[in-house]
Amino acid sequence: MTTEIEIQVGLKSGMADPEGVNVKKALDLLGFDSVKKVDSVKCYRIIINKNEAEAIKECEEICKKLLANPVVHEYSISVAK
Amino acid sequence: MTTEIEIQVGLKSGMADPEGVNVKKALDLLGFDSVKKVDSVKCYRIIINKNEAEAIKECEEICKKLLANPVVHEYSISVAK
Repeated sequence: MTTEIEIQVGLKSGMADPEGVNVKKALDLLGFDSVKKVDSVKCYRIIINKNEAEAIKECEEICKKLLANPVVHEYSISVAK
Repeated sequence: MTTEIEIQVGLKSGMADPEGVNVKKALDLLGFDSVKKVDSVKCYRIIINKNEAEAIKECEEICKKLLANPVVHEYSISVAK
């Protein structure tokens, strides 16, 4: 049995997000005036040979050990549709 | 009125995804044997001064003009929860 998990790793609020800022600038230059804010988030789709509950637990471990830096990142884990 | 939209820009199937491959390798080395595949996806959270329907239409435009390269990328747009 396999489960597809989506992990989103974003910056904690207050951390500088130069990629988001630059996308916002580019959108301003292109005339998208109604855009107020852009945040960039890194996302991983992981296919894992476990049931949902175990896969989520494993991904929690994966975030702590590899994908997220607790000083600057916050992450969320969900089952992908 | 503001709407928060989430845009996901991923690689079309068949395109090389070195970041995903390297995350998979790192997970193998760390002993996460049940992980079968990792895909990396870029995600943008955009706050936009429009109602939902108009915001989605604007983000479609944003993907075409700035965020996605139609040769290699596919994108999805959804209202963020």
